[in-house]
Amino acid sequence: MTTGVGVIGATGLQGGELLRLLRDHPEFALRHVSRSADGPAVPIGDVHPHLGDGPWDGLPLGPADVRAAARDCAVVFLATPPEVSAALAPALLAEGVAVVVDLSPAFRLSRPAAHRRWYPRVPRAEPVPAVYGLPELHRAALPGARLIAVPGCLATAAILALLPLHGLLARLGLRLASITVDGKAGSTGAGASGGSAHALRAGTVAPYAPSGHRHAAEITEALTGQGLTTTDGGLRLGMSVFGVDLVRGVSVAVHASVDRPRASRRGIAVAEHYAEFYRAERFVRVREWRRGPVPLPDPKATTGSNHCDVAAFHDLEADRLVLVAALDNLVKGGAGQALQACNARFGLPEDLGLTAAPLYPA
Amino acid sequence: MTTGVGVIGATGLQGGELLRLLRDHPEFALRHVSRSADGPAVPIGDVHPHLGDGPWDGLPLGPADVRAAARDCAVVFLATPPEVSAALAPALLAEGVAVVVDLSPAFRLSRPAAHRRWYPRVPRAEPVPAVYGLPELHRAALPGARLIAVPGCLATAAILALLPLHGLLARLGLRLASITVDGKAGSTGAGASGGSAHALRAGTVAPYAPSGHRHAAEITEALTGQGLTTTDGGLRLGMSVFGVDLVRGVSVAVHASVDRPRASRRGIAVAEHYAEFYRAERFVRVREWRRGPVPLPDPKATTGSNHCDVAAFHDLEADRLVLVAALDNLVKGGAGQALQACNARFGLPEDLGLTAAPLYPA
Amino acid sequence: MTTGVGVIGATGLQGGELLRLLRDHPEFALRHVSRSADGPAVPIGDVHPHLGDGPWDGLPLGPADVRAAARDCAVVFLATPPEVSAALAPALLAEGVAVVVDLSPAFRLSRPAAHRRWYPRVPRAEPVPAVYGLPELHRAALPGARLIAVPGCLATAAILALLPLHGLLARLGLRLASITVDGKAGSTGAGASGGSAHALRAGTVAPYAPSGHRHAAEITEALTGQGLTTTDGGLRLGMSVFGVDLVRGVSVAVHASVDRPRASRRGIAVAEHYAEFYRAERFVRVREWRRGPVPLPDPKATTGSNHCDVAAFHDLEADRLVLVAALDNLVKGGAGQALQACNARFGLPEDLGLTAAPLYPA
Amino acid sequence: MTTGVGVIGATGLQGGELLRLLRDHPEFALRHVSRSADGPAVPIGDVHPHLGDGPWDGLPLGPADVRAAARDCAVVFLATPPEVSAALAPALLAEGVAVVVDLSPAFRLSRPAAHRRWYPRVPRAEPVPAVYGLPELHRAALPGARLIAVPGCLATAAILALLPLHGLLARLGLRLASITVDGKAGSTGAGASGGSAHALRAGTVAPYAPSGHRHAAEITEALTGQGLTTTDGGLRLGMSVFGVDLVRGVSVAVHASVDRPRASRRGIAVAEHYAEFYRAERFVRVREWRRGPVPLPDPKATTGSNHCDVAAFHDLEADRLVLVAALDNLVKGGAGQALQACNARFGLPEDLGLTAAPLYPA
Repeated sequence: MTTGVGVIGATGLQGGELLRLLRDHPEFALRHVSRSADGPAVPIGDVHPHLGDGPWDGLPLGPADVRAAARDCAVVFLATPPEVSAALAPALLAEGVAVVVDLSPAFRLSRPAAHRRWYPRVPRAEPVPAVYGLPELHRAALPGARLIAVPGCLATAAILALLPLHGLLARLGLRLASITVDGKAGSTGAGASGGSAHALRAGTVAPYAPSGHRHAAEITEALTGQGLTTTDGGLRLGMSVFGVDLVRGVSVAVHASVDRPRASRRGIAVAEHYAEFYRAERFVRVREWRRGPVPLPDPKATTGSNHCDVAAFHDLEADRLVLVAALDNLVKGGAGQALQACNARFGLPEDLGLTAAPLYPA
Repeated sequence: MTTGVGVIGATGLQGGELLRLLRDHPEFALRHVSRSADGPAVPIGDVHPHLGDGPWDGLPLGPADVRAAARDCAVVFLATPPEVSAALAPALLAEGVAVVVDLSPAFRLSRPAAHRRWYPRVPRAEPVPAVYGLPELHRAALPGARLIAVPGCLATAAILALLPLHGLLARLGLRLASITVDGKAGSTGAGASGGSAHALRAGTVAPYAPSGHRHAAEITEALTGQGLTTTDGGLRLGMSVFGVDLVRGVSVAVHASVDRPRASRRGIAVAEHYAEFYRAERFVRVREWRRGPVPLPDPKATTGSNHCDVAAFHDLEADRLVLVAALDNLVKGGAGQALQACNARFGLPEDLGLTAAPLYPA
Repeated sequence: MTTGVGVIGATGLQGGELLRLLRDHPEFALRHVSRSADGPAVPIGDVHPHLGDGPWDGLPLGPADVRAAARDCAVVFLATPPEVSAALAPALLAEGVAVVVDLSPAFRLSRPAAHRRWYPRVPRAEPVPAVYGLPELHRAALPGARLIAVPGCLATAAILALLPLHGLLARLGLRLASITVDGKAGSTGAGASGGSAHALRAGTVAPYAPSGHRHAAEITEALTGQGLTTTDGGLRLGMSVFGVDLVRGVSVAVHASVDRPRASRRGIAVAEHYAEFYRAERFVRVREWRRGPVPLPDPKATTGSNHCDVAAFHDLEADRLVLVAALDNLVKGGAGQALQACNARFGLPEDLGLTAAPLYPA
Repeated sequence: MTTGVGVIGATGLQGGELLRLLRDHPEFALRHVSRSADGPAVPIGDVHPHLGDGPWDGLPLGPADVRAAARDCAVVFLATPPEVSAALAPALLAEGVAVVVDLSPAFRLSRPAAHRRWYPRVPRAEPVPAVYGLPELHRAALPGARLIAVPGCLATAAILALLPLHGLLARLGLRLASITVDGKAGSTGAGASGGSAHALRAGTVAPYAPSGHRHAAEITEALTGQGLTTTDGGLRLGMSVFGVDLVRGVSVAVHASVDRPRASRRGIAVAEHYAEFYRAERFVRVREWRRGPVPLPDPKATTGSNHCDVAAFHDLEADRLVLVAALDNLVKGGAGQALQACNARFGLPEDLGLTAAPLYPA
């Protein structure tokens, strides 16, 4: 008794990754694939040179067809631009699709004002309240969800780096002054057609968002209510993102500036706190850093897997905590997380279809 | 009437870059080259596949020979490990060499306690006080210097990003809470033999120094006395460095967290302040950031040149200034800066032999 | 009733890939892991940063122990240097191990004279005749084999490109004048510690074997008896190999110069012949070339999978056939092929544990 | 008394490289820059992030203006698409420009039939006979030339690899059976906007021209009359080109299959013949191959310079000569060669403005 699923936007990089993961999923059966834009129907293999035979054989890859998708699928994944997702999600739900899993940012920010500010060109109706699909944070809200907003890749890394911080600060007796997220991102984040030509992108450290990255709003909203506040009473968080010469993968360094009150307890191991916090999580690996050829966390050690690797360091010199998180933006930062959240939605083991080890070195 | 110069440690990457630059220098004539370690004498072309004929023809590349170097050269560049430099510099000066320009960190930290702490394995005599060879900062001290300590590549970028900050804060009416330097570094920083194999280093974002990078001490010392202090009275500066898939080049993002006192003046353009500050500097280019395929500063736009590109951004959301600096670690972050400082030492135009435009894209 | 298997040489890149693949194999149970050299016992995760929990938990990773391996395993994979394999294989077989699967070249060349010529430093006893473990060629000989010599990565690609050629030439009425194999190889081929530093290897097209590559002998021997001969009566085959900026993957272009006898039939589609020839092969994909961003075959479209992609082109201008083959050198060119051959050895479906789709783009 | 020169098509990669090289040229004074297409006038620095101040300051970068170019310039470089060059060259010459140096393929093939076949979309008038601007081959024809067709990058490498072959075969007593050129090309060959996105191009070995590359016709025409023929009486030459993960640079391997007549003299060193042949050439370096981290020739050792590195190997096993040539496609394979030819045109030293050593490693 498998569940029929569809992928709209199957020609992009996240769409291709969804196909790769769904190919081997034991409970979800692919019944619909389509493009986000108009265009001639083409075989999957023409678009995704790695994909040979698969459950997509015989499925026409033509323009999005809401009615057909709704007829054949209980779940539809949207790997579409946000303005397309904003239109398709309500339509699919209205047609009776049980669950829409949207990989775009169309429904990530729950507060309408925040959404309007950061996505002014993405007007959205709110067909149903969306659940922010980070299972490590919103696991309880996923069963029964009808609309799941899959988090951004940098946001996923930053949030998973930050979740244990509140408890750690309490144990250390430290107060948080400010947070700066310094992200490094691979070129797949820009999509198959949106990125720079190789000649211009290879060998860069390109400050494409020195400030004002949209994921900062996602991170802030996700952390609101988790107890973490800066000394100004809110959650003062800056974010800068750099494009580096990397295909898959993002890394974030969260620099948390702390104030030392009277009786700070320096002796508590930050690494140990993080390890305890994530002990039960299947996909978050707390890494021990080692000097040598392979200091961790590094996105290179997560390629192709749904892992997010995390480490925490206490910089006593500078009264600073450094939290580093790395993941594959097409898996834990995209298609993999979408599948994990969808597994949770249906009460399945979260790692169903997601057990592959990373490919290393690649 | 050219000046005889020598290069000890000519087999390494910085050594090779010195040869490339000295090849076309109109005032400095290469009269000595040698290795830092023992080993058979070999032709330059066997070690540096790019270098064909040049002023090194006929110069034997054998083990370091202090006496020969002193006989033939007024200036000796040391592209040697710090423990070798610590031994060679006094010996060369004692033999009568007029100027030693050391590219290692052996003499960068002037305070003995700081040196002992960060370089415990580099005992050093202090033959003469070293001048920290960042011309943009210590131009006045260079003429007549006998020992020049060439700054580290990340330190050069961070200091040039930070030098205008004190004045900017004053104009904006802001107080500095903390500084975090997030550095991204290419593989040439590890030397020709010291780095990871390509298979392990390609595609990484490797946190090789999440905290405690030695250049933090350099930066702090260089800025001491420049007016810049954090609200705790000292200069609270943390540093994290990542290895990325890049051959030449480093980029630093300096995240400066600021406190807003009563009457902050937000209207002043940070970019304009930086442009004014560096107007007269030949090698510091203040870049305007542009959304698009080539956001700047990016080390890719400095490759092979002695430029340090800098930009400043005001993140009003997070009460943060973001300063980004990028350079080629083998030129402005090494051999080029050594030559610039040496030019200044002899009262020559600082850009003599250093006028090449960057190679782009490369 | 699973079969116990061991991996000796588990710290290298091929060893790590064997662990990754064996982790999910339903019939082979990992019971032994060890290093090829001496050294302290370490956890797998210290050596392979991508591998977390797995069937290796609790298995000590110490020096190779023939007796322990023989006690616990019916199959031992050797991911060791050829001189180590040459010593271990007879010892393991003597201790009663049923099958030794050697990834080194120690037993690839069956003719003793050829072996001595190409591997003069690898003296070998021949405990039992080795089967050259290319299932597409020697499938029939694998069941019951006690010693399997896993082909080299470039050899695998070249042989699979060449196997259909004899039949094609017959259909086209062409005679073969000469074969030139031009190979392009990634850095994982050199191992985790054997390769060049990133700074020297990035961006190269390095002619590391302009002629005389050892795999040429492998290819020639494998094709002997397959009907393919050049007009000189033997099999005139030259090979040149270049290192390129690639982590995983090799590509070979086989340039087959042909002579046109009286009645050549030009109309027969070479692509069609190749497609027919490999129709029943699970892992060989005959690709259609397409102008555009993704011309195939390209190792990039095989990463992480056991596929070898092949295409054939008829260059009518130059009386030449061009055969291109691409694969992942750690999978179909190494650990994956070893597993495929071992599956065949035990009468299991060849793709058991090898069904993963390629990771793309990566 | 400098000569006024202009660059049309200054926004592309070859155009930018011309600007970089002309910036420091002592005899040619830049007086005109323009785009090949319409579009708003922009500062050079907006298009070429590496270029700061230069002789272009004050020159408006607007649409091509034949009349203005002719008024101000004796020489105009065309870094434009072939159909644009085909139209502009006659117009510029008619307006009185003394020399047009065209970097496109519009005038490379002198035989009209060959041109029509390979460039059917580039109808051309032939204002004056073009000189194929490879100084090493057509040095004598350059003085006085009015139209110079700058060779393609792969063609330059292949021709320079092949020029000494005729003499070598004569010395060795060998007959040439066939030539196969296997080229590996960097992404700058596709231009700033024409290439694939980084995510799709990184890590590829993409057979973008398995046969039928246009440069094959260029090579054949250039070699015609040089004595080199294959045993079929013509010049049987096949060519296959692969895109690799490289920004600048191309490498070609020329596999020359030879027939052994009765008395072949094997003892003659091919490397020596090549060294003698190119002894007097400033820009062709005959390299000795060395096993080790840096086998040569490699485009990496030519980056940013006007060198073409060449090596020749005799594969006695396979009766094959292997000629390898590597160069920077934007310098010796483009803008640098254009300048070298233009120097020769005016009787200037060919290396004027072209003396920079390669940048290595980069």
